[in-house]
Amino acid sequence: MLKIRFYFDEDSWLGPGKAALLEAIETQGSISAAGRHMGMSYKRAWDLVQELNRIFGTPVVVGQMGGRHGGGAELTDTGRAFVAQFRALEQAAASATKPHRDELEKMRKKARSKR
Amino acid sequence: MLKIRFYFDEDSWLGPGKAALLEAIETQGSISAAGRHMGMSYKRAWDLVQELNRIFGTPVVVGQMGGRHGGGAELTDTGRAFVAQFRALEQAAASATKPHRDELEKMRKKARSKR
Repeated sequence: MLKIRFYFDEDSWLGPGKAALLEAIETQGSISAAGRHMGMSYKRAWDLVQELNRIFGTPVVVGQMGGRHGGGAELTDTGRAFVAQFRALEQAAASATKPHRDELEKMRKKARSKR
Repeated sequence: MLKIRFYFDEDSWLGPGKAALLEAIETQGSISAAGRHMGMSYKRAWDLVQELNRIFGTPVVVGQMGGRHGGGAELTDTGRAFVAQFRALEQAAASATKPHRDELEKMRKKARSKR
C-alpha cells in the first residue's frame, strides 16, 4: 500500500488524511461530525480545515464553522476539485507502481524465507 | 513534489528517508558517517538500520556495526536491491502523476489569484 503526499511547497502538502477529512465533511455534513468520524478532536479537524484554506488560498469548506455543535458545513467547488484531483493522482500512482510494489513484496518474501 | 511511503504492512514501510539513509551508508562508507551526512544522530541512524533489517527479515547493511567510531559498513545485495526498486517506484509514480501534479498546481495558482 502506498501513502502519498503532494507538496506544493515545504510547508504546504495534501495527503490521504487531509483528503479523507474533506471527504468526511462532505458525507457527514459538518466539521465536528467529520472529526468524530475520523477519530480526531474537533480542534484538530478545525485546525486542518484552516490549514487547507491557507494552503489553497481560498475556502475549501463553507458553512457555520464555530462551536462544537455548530451548523452544517460543506465543501466548496474548490475543495471538491482538489480532493478529486488528489484521489486521481493516488490512482495513477497506484497503477503505475504495481510492478514495483509486486517486486518489493516478492523480494521481501524471498529475503524473509531465507532466515 | 511527491513523498511516497510503501507499506509492507501497518508497521513496516519504506520511504524516502530510509532509502536516503541506505544510499548514504553506501556512499559514506559507515553508519555513523551516513547519519552525520543525513543530519541525524548515530543512535537514530543505527535504530533505522535495525528497523530495516527487521522489515526485510535479513541484513541490509553489513560491517562493523558497534560504536560511534566503528569501522566501515556497506549495503548487502538485498539492501541495494530494495533501494533500487523503491527509487524505481518513485520514478514511476512521478511520471504517471505529472498531469495531476500540474493540474493541482494550476488549480492552486488560480484559487490564490482570486483572493
